[in-house]
Amino acid sequence: MSDAEVDRIFHALADATRRDIVRRTLLGQASVSELAAAYDMSFAAVQKHVAVLESAGLIHKQVSGRQRLVHADPETLERARNLLADYENLWRARVQRLDEMFEGE
Amino acid sequence: MSDAEVDRIFHALADATRRDIVRRTLLGQASVSELAAAYDMSFAAVQKHVAVLESAGLIHKQVSGRQRLVHADPETLERARNLLADYENLWRARVQRLDEMFEGE
Repeated sequence: MSDAEVDRIFHALADATRRDIVRRTLLGQASVSELAAAYDMSFAAVQKHVAVLESAGLIHKQVSGRQRLVHADPETLERARNLLADYENLWRARVQRLDEMFEGE
Repeated sequence: MSDAEVDRIFHALADATRRDIVRRTLLGQASVSELAAAYDMSFAAVQKHVAVLESAGLIHKQVSGRQRLVHADPETLERARNLLADYENLWRARVQRLDEMFEGE
């Protein structure tokens, strides 16, 4: 993933409504109108959140008749999670090296 | 974690320099001056990034003589990773339920 892609994913996740849209549409697709009703928001406000999530690859839109159905992409979440796990592994490797140094004394 | 705490963590991670500060200071503490030199940035610019990371709990500062040493907090990364894992688990549970439904037919 490029820096810009990772920036977009974390930026999209830095908002409680957007995280909730991801959670909800992981459990089943929803139309933008359904999301607007669920969050008591204007259609335009939800559309903005949906656009941010879509540009991050966290959700995808599908046209079904007159509706636009939104579903979350678990693979993008997994990529973000793996990135955080990589950071933690750097730290674990360092702690292990320090442990080994002290054991060697 | 409150919504605001999670917002701050993901906002802090939505920038390549800030992610690199986390990575670097997971491997060993660094002073703000060292970070400024490493990124060829002004002291003030790095201090801003450090403040965003600190308010998210991703790094902590320690005063050592005249220096402020920065070190990353792997626990905060882990909390963010667990949150993403929870989302993925929601999705897995749903896929499993669908599988069971089809098997039941």
